[in-house]
This record gives sequence, structure tokens and C-alpha cells, in this order.
Amino acid sequence: MHLEDCESPVERSCCLIELDANDGGNYDIVNDVSSPAAGDCCSRQSSARHNWEMNYQEAAIYLQEGENNDKFFTHPKNAKALAAYLFAHNHLFYLMELTTALLLLLLSLCEAPAVPMLRLGIYVHATLELFALVVVVFELSMKMRWLGFHTYIRHKRTMVKTFVLFVQFIEAIVVLVRQTSHVRVTRALRCIFLVDCRYCGAVRRNLRQIFQSLPPFIDILALLLFFMVIFGILGFYLFSPNHSDPYFNTLENSLVNLFVLLTTSNFPDVMMPSYARNPWSCVFFIVYLSIELYFIMNLLLAVVFDTFNDIEKKKFKSLLLHKRTAIQHAYRLLITKQNPSGISFKHLEGLLRFYKPRMCARDRYLTFKALNQSNTPLVSLKDFYNFYEVVGLKWKAKRNREHWFDELPRTAFLIFKGINILVKSQAFQYAMYTVVAVNGIWILVETFMLQGGNFLPRDVPWSYIVFLTIYGVELLLKTTGLGPIEYLSSGWNFFDFLVTLFAFLGLLTLAFNMEPFYFIVVLRPIQLLRLFKLKKRYRNVLDTIFELFPRMASLGLTLLIFYYCFAIVGMEFFAGVVYPNCCNTSTVADSYRWLNHTVGNKTVVEEGYYYLNNFDNVLNSFVTLFELTVVNDWYIIMEGVTSETSHWSRLYFMTFYIVTMVVMTIIVAFILEAFVFRMNYMRKNQDSEEDNGIVLEKEIFKEEMVALTELYKINCATYEVAQLQKIIAQMDKYEQPSMLFLGRRSRTKSDLSIKMYEEEIQEWYEEHSRKEEYQQRQEALPSSSNNPLKPLGLRQRSQTVI
Amino acid sequence: MHLEDCESPVERSCCLIELDANDGGNYDIVNDVSSPAAGDCCSRQSSARHNWEMNYQEAAIYLQEGENNDKFFTHPKNAKALAAYLFAHNHLFYLMELTTALLLLLLSLCEAPAVPMLRLGIYVHATLELFALVVVVFELSMKMRWLGFHTYIRHKRTMVKTFVLFVQFIEAIVVLVRQTSHVRVTRALRCIFLVDCRYCGAVRRNLRQIFQSLPPFIDILALLLFFMVIFGILGFYLFSPNHSDPYFNTLENSLVNLFVLLTTSNFPDVMMPSYARNPWSCVFFIVYLSIELYFIMNLLLAVVFDTFNDIEKKKFKSLLLHKRTAIQHAYRLLITKQNPSGISFKHLEGLLRFYKPRMCARDRYLTFKALNQSNTPLVSLKDFYNFYEVVGLKWKAKRNREHWFDELPRTAFLIFKGINILVKSQAFQYAMYTVVAVNGIWILVETFMLQGGNFLPRDVPWSYIVFLTIYGVELLLKTTGLGPIEYLSSGWNFFDFLVTLFAFLGLLTLAFNMEPFYFIVVLRPIQLLRLFKLKKRYRNVLDTIFELFPRMASLGLTLLIFYYCFAIVGMEFFAGVVYPNCCNTSTVADSYRWLNHTVGNKTVVEEGYYYLNNFDNVLNSFVTLFELTVVNDWYIIMEGVTSETSHWSRLYFMTFYIVTMVVMTIIVAFILEAFVFRMNYMRKNQDSEEDNGIVLEKEIFKEEMVALTELYKINCATYEVAQLQKIIAQMDKYEQPSMLFLGRRSRTKSDLSIKMYEEEIQEWYEEHSRKEEYQQRQEALPSSSNNPLKPLGLRQRSQTVI
Repeated sequence: MHLEDCESPVERSCCLIELDANDGGNYDIVNDVSSPAAGDCCSRQSSARHNWEMNYQEAAIYLQEGENNDKFFTHPKNAKALAAYLFAHNHLFYLMELTTALLLLLLSLCEAPAVPMLRLGIYVHATLELFALVVVVFELSMKMRWLGFHTYIRHKRTMVKTFVLFVQFIEAIVVLVRQTSHVRVTRALRCIFLVDCRYCGAVRRNLRQIFQSLPPFIDILALLLFFMVIFGILGFYLFSPNHSDPYFNTLENSLVNLFVLLTTSNFPDVMMPSYARNPWSCVFFIVYLSIELYFIMNLLLAVVFDTFNDIEKKKFKSLLLHKRTAIQHAYRLLITKQNPSGISFKHLEGLLRFYKPRMCARDRYLTFKALNQSNTPLVSLKDFYNFYEVVGLKWKAKRNREHWFDELPRTAFLIFKGINILVKSQAFQYAMYTVVAVNGIWILVETFMLQGGNFLPRDVPWSYIVFLTIYGVELLLKTTGLGPIEYLSSGWNFFDFLVTLFAFLGLLTLAFNMEPFYFIVVLRPIQLLRLFKLKKRYRNVLDTIFELFPRMASLGLTLLIFYYCFAIVGMEFFAGVVYPNCCNTSTVADSYRWLNHTVGNKTVVEEGYYYLNNFDNVLNSFVTLFELTVVNDWYIIMEGVTSETSHWSRLYFMTFYIVTMVVMTIIVAFILEAFVFRMNYMRKNQDSEEDNGIVLEKEIFKEEMVALTELYKINCATYEVAQLQKIIAQMDKYEQPSMLFLGRRSRTKSDLSIKMYEEEIQEWYEEHSRKEEYQQRQEALPSSSNNPLKPLGLRQRSQTVI
Repeated sequence: MHLEDCESPVERSCCLIELDANDGGNYDIVNDVSSPAAGDCCSRQSSARHNWEMNYQEAAIYLQEGENNDKFFTHPKNAKALAAYLFAHNHLFYLMELTTALLLLLLSLCEAPAVPMLRLGIYVHATLELFALVVVVFELSMKMRWLGFHTYIRHKRTMVKTFVLFVQFIEAIVVLVRQTSHVRVTRALRCIFLVDCRYCGAVRRNLRQIFQSLPPFIDILALLLFFMVIFGILGFYLFSPNHSDPYFNTLENSLVNLFVLLTTSNFPDVMMPSYARNPWSCVFFIVYLSIELYFIMNLLLAVVFDTFNDIEKKKFKSLLLHKRTAIQHAYRLLITKQNPSGISFKHLEGLLRFYKPRMCARDRYLTFKALNQSNTPLVSLKDFYNFYEVVGLKWKAKRNREHWFDELPRTAFLIFKGINILVKSQAFQYAMYTVVAVNGIWILVETFMLQGGNFLPRDVPWSYIVFLTIYGVELLLKTTGLGPIEYLSSGWNFFDFLVTLFAFLGLLTLAFNMEPFYFIVVLRPIQLLRLFKLKKRYRNVLDTIFELFPRMASLGLTLLIFYYCFAIVGMEFFAGVVYPNCCNTSTVADSYRWLNHTVGNKTVVEEGYYYLNNFDNVLNSFVTLFELTVVNDWYIIMEGVTSETSHWSRLYFMTFYIVTMVVMTIIVAFILEAFVFRMNYMRKNQDSEEDNGIVLEKEIFKEEMVALTELYKINCATYEVAQLQKIIAQMDKYEQPSMLFLGRRSRTKSDLSIKMYEEEIQEWYEEHSRKEEYQQRQEALPSSSNNPLKPLGLRQRSQTVI
């Protein structure tokens, strides 16, 4: 972070704005569009302004492309494309995309084999599908309008989407015409509509990363399978003479069982028949497991982890350079002929109006001040490189009073001050930890004493009331001592608040006997989590968890997308295959047995519940797939299905195992990488302050505010003027000559990476600028004059001139 | 590596030795011991030499201590201690230590409950034990003599060993007197005798590393167990109303089953009863597994991996500095007053005689030349810092002829040359790969066709002969083309050779129907491993494996030591507890059932083999513990034992799970670290040459050799003189004025680390020397004059002077 607080003296800042205001009067554009004569304040600039608006908009688009890592060859090339671009790039459109994709995915709940409660007629769900597909066609046509036909065809992901859409369309029509569902494995491809959504960018990145990690993964997998084959042949030769050993009687069985053994799922059963015959046969299994499970599987993790680290760094580098290029493109659109060395506030303000429409006038000015580190009225390119870091800041006026009760009368102040000191004291905190610990032990002992009796008592236990009272008092003290806003601004306090609220709701539930809400009472032990504030390592771990959460969620979503594909395929092939007392011919018949017989004079229900792990509808499939992911006893499910269908079904289960293994390995590598990265970062910055995000302080003087208001008045921006006047009024009220503002945002992985790779980044930049210079020299040659990357606005304007 | 080839001209080298020889005439020791008058060459120096011998020996001891990372406070302090030190530091003594320790460990095979075949009378094994313990007493008394009483008491490991010895002694005597074994859980402590062996240094280091990684591990484990308790209480409240759910009916069951669920061992069974009642209950299990298994367990790995990396680096640093200090100590003992700026060859030679007694005279001189980079006749301290890197080199005369057949007659030469070119050609190699691949497929198909028939045919199949012939021809061609020595010097070729040899033995076995050796035939598929030469990544992986192997083996041994402790405890408490048809009251009774009943007219043996997983003797215990390590279905073993003993037995199994989890996590972290380190290293040195160890080239001129011989003649070292004269004769034969020697050793982890941390190492050195200077200044103060770290020889000599 190169952001430093560079206070400029009041006079200078004021004249800065005035100069800006003057500059606003005579627009001087790079391509020298004629500046209109002076006239009425609100109309004289309209034509020049229109030209500038184009530039602002395009610069904003460049910056967005930089941020989203969109390649510049999809940059809109003309006004029609721009209109389509703008249409396709707003949250309404994104939401439409997302809704359509979700609708298509959720249809599988209602299509046969449907979840019983949600079953819909073929007519209904096929029509719904057709409708959703038509919406997708509309989306794609907008995209084609924006990209142009040639770029559209070159864009692989979009082409795949078009193809899938085509197939889905035909199939939906066929279903509607025939009025009956056929085998529609292609439904698994519906995921692509979700993956292509703007909001699922993270999922796309994950998928790309998974595919990039595949080659080394496959190599090691081959090693793994190779050893499996060798041991399969060995095992077959060694153990097939033993006729009581069902695991190695054929080569196929031998291989399948060694595959399952790789997942440890059939160990030690697979060893037992041969072990019973000859104790030394255990050596075969120990060697196999040592090589395959303990060595090669870990090697797999190591290789993936290594590749992952490498890709992560490369990705960071390319993203950083892409952003830099975007900033350069935007910069070139915003400088004027008169001020070729920087962007004036006027133009930055214009850019921000498009880039962040909801930013208020005050924040726009603060952003300008934060960017401008040279005390000149212009933001140079070097300053502008910080754009992404600065624009994310949330600005807030720095309050002068320390506590919320500073302005109360003396007595009240003293009381609240006392509470404040009490609440902030170590003793109070440790007392509360003790209470929580005692409460935890109490709950444990209480639960232990119940032992299956009537454990949801009709009357509220007194311990519940005592502890709740203590928590309530703590809540009250903290809220009054710190002030509600400061209290809730800490994540831990907010957590305390929620837990206490839940406990209170639980009390009400108990008091009024509202049975359906009993689960709230059951959630009580969660407040024990508060104990984890105590140790630094836990705080670290929890911070890491919060930092990881978005990426974890996107990885989870990626996994769900794989689940969906496999669920669809599973449903098409295995729906209704397993049921109670099926699979009697297989070795796992016991697990599917459902008997209701009488022993003596007691009815005994022998229940092997595995028939519940089926593919009868999407929800069941998901649960079954989760069980397959956990791996334990997955072969029971596999063998059950196999015995009712064909040997080839095993392919499905084995493929699923390998796919989840890939994803899980990536998840492990990701957690490892993130954690180790953070720890290294902390070790590198041990001396620096407690990590609480990025904070920047800027002072604004009243004179600046007034000048700013004048500027907006000239431009007839009444809304902004009103906003600014409110701030001026506030300054007047407290009789302050200036006001301090704090810009704040949480630290992202990118910030950490910038600090970690500080030295390398400079090298990258140099290399990049060398490359760019070379490219520019190439571009200067006449042959490449129709370069599609040439900024749209500039070309347009030069056309206007001609 | 700072080793560079610095050729000095012949004349200079010669006078270097002559000067050295002169220097040998008048010994000038730092503390100015009187130099004896000139006399007969073989006796005149004896008294001065005796003094120097002490210095050489002590310097060698310092260097050994530096290499073995022995702390200097165990340095022998006087002549008596030195004698004990020398007695306790040679391979015979080490072997005795190891044998005694192994004997003590192996006794558990014969003590009740013994392996049936190895059962010995109490009288016999108790006497054996007493004998071994007496030997240990002897070892310890030698150690006490060497260390002195005060240091002995301060040395923790030795004190623990003494205490354990004491306990064992008493118990052994009690057994002998009572003539019956009592509960001897303390036998588990016998491991300490093995761990303390000199040869088990790696195991000690592993154990230390494991203990150092424990604190963060325990923190995360607490988090894990904490969530387990929370979910245990939740699960109990949610599922205990369901009376058909045996997993959550009490809080204890609930906790135990969630612990088992953490290992996934009882999934999905544990979910099934509640899932059958309410499909949404799967959410509980999915959330639990996601948090515990997929998140916190990975976090555990991440934390351990991070700590491991950190420790690894710190360890490397401390070892490096320790070695440096050792070199400094040795250096101070080897410089003379006349030459305070370096070590002369005479003294280095003296040192090497003690440090590496088996090094020949030629190699000593080569080591001197390799160390000496300044072309002066002295090795400066800066040069001497490379001691450990240089002394490990294996020297060999560089042969001038390219092939072994260069000196054969023309025709033979051409034939062999042709074979050489053929064998080295790409086409030949790929042809062989193809043959191996075809052979692999052949074996697979052949095996597949057999399907449990008479698959060890009486007559040799022709395919076997064909492939073996091809391999034989390949072997022959390669041996003749490359020469037998060059052929076998490549690891891969050696592997080929072994495999072909085995295949040939297999053929003989088949041909002569030697049934007990049929397993050789079965090993055939192993030759498919040759295919993995093909790809670079596999070569990398295999190289890493070979590099990792010593550490992996020591980690395996560490695991076995834990196994031993648990096996002893298990045997003491659970021997004979499980047997067929035991555990009928438990939920896992089926797995222990052994029934022999008749259904229709067929005898059906219902065999749950789990009674085989018992603690009836050490070997069985080891197999059982391995099964527990693999984790799958471990709860069946646990529940079986628990149902026959008490609830507290679970503690044993859970502790074992946690211990193996620690060790396994460390193993994973180790593999990860080693692999990632190597990959980073390779990425950093992409441009450097193919990695084939460290090679150093040195030229020796005949004049030097002659001078060297003269030097040894003066010192009456007839054996060395004969060796050197042989080399001179060889030079004369080929009429060479000089001879080239190649020093070679394999690259170690330490070499890689030195290159990786190049920059940091300089900082460490500076910091270290600053610290040392400070210390020296402290030492200069009179108060610390009786510093125990003061070198022994120096003090001795100063005593002599006084």
C-alpha cells in the first residue's frame, strides 16, 4: 500500500477546486473538439459534455473490465455494441441470468423422477423449461449484439453455451411433443448456464484452476492406478487359490477390491479371509496401503498443492497487470491536451459517476484527494495506479467525541464512564469467560444426568434463568458502556448479542410451551464458542476462516455443480434400482435387508437402511453423493447398484470418487495455501500494527466544501449540492474549520499478496512496460491501424472531427 | 557451494609441500610448547607430536560433535573423560547399544503373552532381560565417566534412561523371584533404550519435531473436540427421542459415535436411523462432517505443516551455526603461532587421520587441495568453513578412455562401438519401452483369461520365454556396449538387471517345478515399473522418493516405536479378550460371530473374522494397530474389546487414534514439505545443469606426489608411502605429467537448503559472529575463566606450561 496521508494546506485545496471549476468552463479535449461559446450555465456545455460523457463511460468500462478480469477484446467497439454492453452489464440483467439458470437447475426437482411433493405434469415443466430457454436465447442475443458476430464465435465459453442451449431446446420440444420424458442425460449440462452467470465468476475461476491442476494430478493418478494393477495381478495369483476368499477370485474382483481398498473402505474385511489362512498375508496389504495410501496419495496432495501455489501466483500476476493496463486505458481517455500530465477533479468526478453511480459527491472528492499525492491539482498516472485500492474505501466522518455519552450531564457521564471502564476491564472479561465455562459444564452435566428421560422439561429450569440473566446484564452493561453502535461494530459482540437473543427466545419458547421452536433451546451450547476469543491462535484461525469464507463458499458451489451433473446421470440410470430386500445376490445383501420377523414372542425388525441411499430423486441423489464423498462404506452403495444393473455401473462410482478426490484435494490445497500464506505474511510483518483493515485519513476544509458546492451548482447538480450543503451546515454547527474523514476497507488477499511479493511486483511492472512499449511501437506501424483494442471513444471522436 | 577449481601451478604446489615438510620439523604450538631439538627422523618429533596428536584428536572430536549436532557441553573435559569418550564413540560400542536395545524389545515376543512358536520359560527370558539390562548399566557407566557426574545429571535424556533402567531392573528381579509375570505396562518404556542409540539419531530428531509441533496441534484438537461436544449435546437432544436409534440414546454414546464419525468410520450407518425417520436430519451430519472433517481436520494439517516448515528452517539454521562453531573450535586447535592465518597440510593431515581414519593419503591431500582456495600453503578459516562439504567427497581418478573397449583391437572396437551407439540410441530405448508395455498388456490379458483355473501351469508358457529372451538380449547388449561398471552405475539399469535376473530365476522355478519359489513368477509385473523412466515428472517423483527414503524410514521407525508402546499396553490389558462368538451383547456382535450351521443340505460357515484382530501377542497386536491406523471400521475392534472389558477401554483406542493422527499428519507435512521444497528449488535453478550430485575436479602433478611421498617417508608412514608410490608408478606407466581426480558425492537436503536460503544464511552468519564476539568479550572477563566450553587440548597444554 502506497497510500499516505498527504495533507494539503487549505488555501491550496481551495484554489485547486477553483481552478477545476474554471477548467470546467472551457473543455479541452485531446482531439480538440471546438469549445462552445459561453452561455447559460446549464446548457452551454451540453455538446462538449456529451463528448466527455462518452469518455467517462468508456473509461469506467475499462476499469470494470480490469476489475472483473474481462479480456479487452470483448470491449464494445461501437455505439450499438455499447448500448448492448450497458444493457447486459447491470444487476437487473445479472439477476435475470441467475434466476433463469437456477430455474433450469431446479426443474430437475419436478421432472420425473421428481421429489414426490414437487411433482409437476410434463406439460407444465416442459413449458417452464422452454420459457427459461427462451430467456437464455434473449441473453445470448444481447451478448452477440455487444460482442459482434466474430468475437462471439471466438469466445469459447459462449459457443459451448450456445450449443448446449440448442440441444436443450430440441430436447424440450421433443418432450413437449411426445408428452413423455426420454433419457435426458444432457440435463447434466444445464450447469453451464449457472457457471456462465456474472455472479458465478468465482466458480468459473475455480473450475479453471481445477483444470489447470489436472495434468500433474493425472500423472500421479496413473502411477496410483499402475501400482493398483500390479498389486491386482499379484493379489489374484496369491489369494485366488483360497476359495473362501471372495475378494480375489477373479482379476476383475481383485482390481475392484484394491480400488476400494485404496479408499480404505473395505479394510480390514478384504484382508481377513487370507489373514485367517496365513498370518503373513497381511504383509501384502500393509505394503499396498503404505505405498498407495500413505505415499502416493500424499504425493498427489503435494503435487496438487505445488501446482496450486504456482497457479495462484501466476493468476495474481496476470490480474495485477491486467488491472494496470485497464488503468492505463482509462487514464488515456481522461487527460486533456492542456493537462496531459494528469486527470483533473472534474474528469475524475465524471468517471466516478459512471463507475460507481451510488457514490455521493463528498466521497468522490475524498477519493480524488486520496488519489492525489502530489499536491498538484491533477492526479498523475502514478497516482492513478492506486485507483482500485482507493475506490473501495468507505468514507466516514471521524467523530470527535470519544464516547457516545460525552455530551450528557455530569452525573450521567460519570455513571456511564464507570460502566465503560468496567466493561473494558480485563477482570470483567475474564469473569464472563468463567461464567460461560461454568455454563458449558453445567449444560454438559445436566445433559448427562437426563439420560434419555423427559429431557425437555415443562417448566423452565432455574439455571437457565440465572445464566440468561447474567448474559442479559452483560449485554445491557456493554451496550450502555460502549454505545450500541460501537458495541455491534465488533463481530464477537454481535455474536454474543445473537446468542443471547436466541437464548431469550428459547426461554420464551419454554415458558409458553411452543414445541416447534424447541430447537432454539437445543442451540444453547453454541454460546460456548465465545471461549475461543481467549487465545491468539484461535483468533487467528477464526480470522483466517472469515477471510477464506468467500472462496470456500465458491469451492463448495463448484462441488455442488459436480454433484448436480452426477445426480442427473445417476437419476437417469439408477432411479428406482435399489429398494428394501433388493441385491440378494450380492455380497452386501445384508445392508439392504428389511425383515420383520418374530423371535420368541418379540417382533424384531432387522433393518439395513442402505436402500435409502438411492437415486430416486435429486435430493436423495445429493445425499447419496455426499455419502460417496465421505467415502466410508461407499462400496456397499456401489455393489448394491451394480448387482441390480450391470458391472459397468462401477465406472460411474469410480469416476465420481476420482472427481471428488480432485476437488477435495484442491480444497485441501487451498486451505493449506491460504493458511500458510497468512502465517508467512504475519511472520513477515510481526512488528506492524494489529491487522484491522486498511484505513486512510483525509481532512476537508470548509472552504473546499464551499468551492465544491459552487462547482456542482454550476453543473446544476442539485442533489449533490444539497448533500454538500448538509455537511457545511454540520461544520457550522460545531464551528469547525475542517472535518476529518476516515476511509476504511477490509484487507483482501490481493493486498496481502502485494505486500508479500513487493519486490517481484516491481520486476513484473518493468517487464510489462517493456513489453508494452514494444507493442506500441508495433502499433505505430500503419499495418495495425485498425487494431480492435483502440479505445472506442477516441476513435469515435476522431470520426466526428472528420 | 563455494567450491571452485583453483589450479595452482606445479612449482608452487611442490614448494607448498616442502615448506610443509620443513614446518613439520619445528613444531610451533600456539601456547609455545618448547620445540624439541633435531634428531633421528622417526623419534625426534615424538614428544611434540604427542602434544599435537592431542590437538588433532580434539579437533576431530569437535568436528564430529558439529556433524552429529552434539552439544559442546558434553565435550570430554580431561584425559579420563577422553578415554571414555573414545570408548563410547565407535561402531562396536554403537552396535552393542543397538543389539541390547533390540534384544530388550524382542523379548516381548517370548514373554507371556508370547507368540506361540517363540514362547520361552520365565526363567529364560527374565535372565536374558537381566543380562541385557546389565549391559545397559555398563553403557551408562561409560557415559557417566565421559560426561562427569554433573553433566550426566543435567543431561535429561540420560536421566530418563537411568530411571527407566532402574524400574526395569527391579521388575525383572521381581519376575525372577516370583517366577510369574505381573502386569508390566512399564515394558512399554523399553523403547527408550532404542531411541537413545547413536544409530537412531533420526528417530530422536523426529520425536523432537513431533513434540515441537504439538502445541499448535493440541490447540486445534481442542477446537475439534469442542465442536464434537457441542454437536454431541445437540445430537443427543435431537435424536434420542427416536428409540430405534442406538447411536444417540445416551450422551456418552452420542459423543463416542461422533468421535467415530470424525474418522468417518461409522458413516452412513450412524445417520441411517434418523434419516429413515426424517430426511432432513441428514443436515446435522452434513454440517458436522463439513465443519469437523473437511474444515478443522484440514486446518490441523495446515497448522502442523506451517509449524513443521518453521521448525525445519530453524533446525537447519541452528545446525549450520553449530557446525560453524565446531569448525571454529577445531581451527583454533590447528593453527600454529608461526602461521596464525591458516592450517598447514601437516596439521590437516593429522586431523583427518583422526576424523576419517580410513581415508587414504591421496584423498587427504586432495581434500587439502580442495579446501585450499587461496593458492597459499595454508587453509584459512574461510576455506576451512567448507570442511564438511569437502570431506564427504569420494575421490576417483578420472579415466582418460571414454569406453571400456577403447584399447581392444580395431575390429572388436568397431563392433563394440556399434553396440554402444545402438544401445544409447533413442530408437532402441523406445523399442524396449514398447516391449515392456506389450509384455504388461500380455500379462494382464493372460491373467484375465485364467480366471481362477489352474493358473500356475506345469509347462513354461512360450510368451514367458520370448519376453525373457528379449530382456536377456537387451541386458547383454547393454553390458557389452556400456561396460559392466558403467551399466550398473545407473540405478535404472541396476533395476532392469535385478528384474531380469528374477525373471530368469522364475523361469528356472517353473522349469524345475520348485513350488516354494513360485512367488518369483508372480513378481513379473514389477518390471512394468521400467515404463516410468519415460516421463520427466515421474523421474522427478522417483528422485524425490529416493531422497526422502532415509527420512521416511526413520519416520516409519518412529511410528513403530509408538506401535510398540501401544502393543505392550494393549497386550497387558486386552490379551485373550476377544475370541469367536464373543461380544454377543455389543452392537458389533456380527463381526465376531463364527457359526457353522446347515441351511438346506449345505453347510454354511458364517465367519466374522474380527476375533483375529486381537492383542494376543506382539505380532497380532501390531497388525491390529495397523488396522486401527488405517481407521476404517476401527470402531468394530474398539466396541468388541469394550464389550468384553470396560467403557474405559475406549480411552486406549481414542488415544491411539489421536497419536497416529499426529504422526500421520507429520508424515504428510513432511512429504509435502520435501516435495514443495524440491520443486521450488528446481524452479529457482531451472537454468542450471542436470542434477547429478556435487562434483569437484582436482589435478595432481607428479612432482607433488613425489614431495608428498617424501613427507610421509620422513614420518615413517610406510603404508601411505606404498599407496602413493603406486600412484606414481601408474603415472609413469601412462607417461602423464599429472593426473585428474574427481570428487563426487550426492546432493543432500542440506546442500539444497544452503542454496535456497543463500541470502538469509549470510545474515545468520553475521548475527552469529556478532553474538560470538560479544561472548568472547564476556569470556575475556576474569569471572568466566573456568568456562567448561574452553577447549580441552588448549587448557591441557597451558597446564603443561605452568
